[in-house]
Amino acid sequence: MIPFEFIAHIENDYSTKFGIPRQSGLDGGSLSKIVFEKPYRDPSALKGIEGYSHLWLLWYFSEGEKPEKWSPTVRPPRLGGNERMGVFATRSPNRPNRIGLSCVQFDGVVETEDGPVLLVRGADLKSGTPIFDIKPYLPFCDAHPSATGGFADAVFGKKLTVAPTDLFLLLPEEKRTALLSLLAEDPRPSYHHDPDRVYAFEWGGYKIKFTVNADTLYVCEIKEDHGRK
Amino acid sequence: MIPFEFIAHIENDYSTKFGIPRQSGLDGGSLSKIVFEKPYRDPSALKGIEGYSHLWLLWYFSEGEKPEKWSPTVRPPRLGGNERMGVFATRSPNRPNRIGLSCVQFDGVVETEDGPVLLVRGADLKSGTPIFDIKPYLPFCDAHPSATGGFADAVFGKKLTVAPTDLFLLLPEEKRTALLSLLAEDPRPSYHHDPDRVYAFEWGGYKIKFTVNADTLYVCEIKEDHGRK
Repeated sequence: MIPFEFIAHIENDYSTKFGIPRQSGLDGGSLSKIVFEKPYRDPSALKGIEGYSHLWLLWYFSEGEKPEKWSPTVRPPRLGGNERMGVFATRSPNRPNRIGLSCVQFDGVVETEDGPVLLVRGADLKSGTPIFDIKPYLPFCDAHPSATGGFADAVFGKKLTVAPTDLFLLLPEEKRTALLSLLAEDPRPSYHHDPDRVYAFEWGGYKIKFTVNADTLYVCEIKEDHGRK
Repeated sequence: MIPFEFIAHIENDYSTKFGIPRQSGLDGGSLSKIVFEKPYRDPSALKGIEGYSHLWLLWYFSEGEKPEKWSPTVRPPRLGGNERMGVFATRSPNRPNRIGLSCVQFDGVVETEDGPVLLVRGADLKSGTPIFDIKPYLPFCDAHPSATGGFADAVFGKKLTVAPTDLFLLLPEEKRTALLSLLAEDPRPSYHHDPDRVYAFEWGGYKIKFTVNADTLYVCEIKEDHGRK
């Protein structure tokens, strides 16, 4: 057993699990901040990082408990939640070592009273998620655009049409594309298919309500949520 | 602190640290076996993995000791070993959490008396290295071919010319391309530049000796090493 410690955590608009895209880069590039824990607040640890367009985050699946016994198979939500796949053929959090891997866009470093803060876009991590490591993305060994993506290829391409609505005007402009993108990714738990059901979630200080009929998503409400940031 | 356990280890021709390519995919695709530790020898954990052409390995930098105090900067060997970069702008093993990340090609699963063994190509791990996790490579979120690769872009493109020699005929055919590729990657510690110095290393059951003059590498000896596999 090797103990690993948290070097940082992320802060962003995903205040709850509901609505977080199921992989990185799917939410229109909304902004996250990576705040280092006290022992790691050293700007020199980021020297040279500005030369990279993308970074890897290695993080902890802190949502949910690790079961006592590992399960060799999981039910990916994108397969409808019924079919079982081998855990090592999925990116499921329910794996022997709960380490997540996400590629994000580098968007700068700012100096704050909490030390250097790394700005990234496209993260699929809930706000507050602890981070183990940040690595540069090296295209010569990490980018394989012709790789075949197994069953994920077939299921991740599917998007919902979001019905146009003036409700988006209630949001600050920089949040509109992000919300549109994450709704198009179909944030429902995949085993629900009830056109009358109203789904609600909190995101970026707003409460969002919507319904889905066939492949179209209808936003019912966007309301500022004063209890949240 | 979160404890992580080893789920598997790798077995391949890299019996020593010397000669291991500095990233994955640079050694002409030589073969490695991933052998699961006893609690994880379950073929169903690999169900669906055959649909993927590439996999991620998350592994432990088990070579060398973790220093008591972390260093925010490191000296990448490819920059000559003198210039310091921020640790999070490098893939150096000398990082707060010693987790390595490598993309490998999937080459099949075989059933053995040690359970299911995963065959992969292009790994940059020393034989025996423990593994924390295996994940499928998802091109839609992991492949960013137009990403910019910072200082690594400039230094990883450089290769040596390997002078033609009959000595390669001493190797089994399937090992020749692999050795040629890893020699072209310049396995010397970068701060050495002495044309008379003979470098020696063990690899795949052979002892290899070579010299380097300017940008050309000259193989002096390839000898079966009976002490090794």
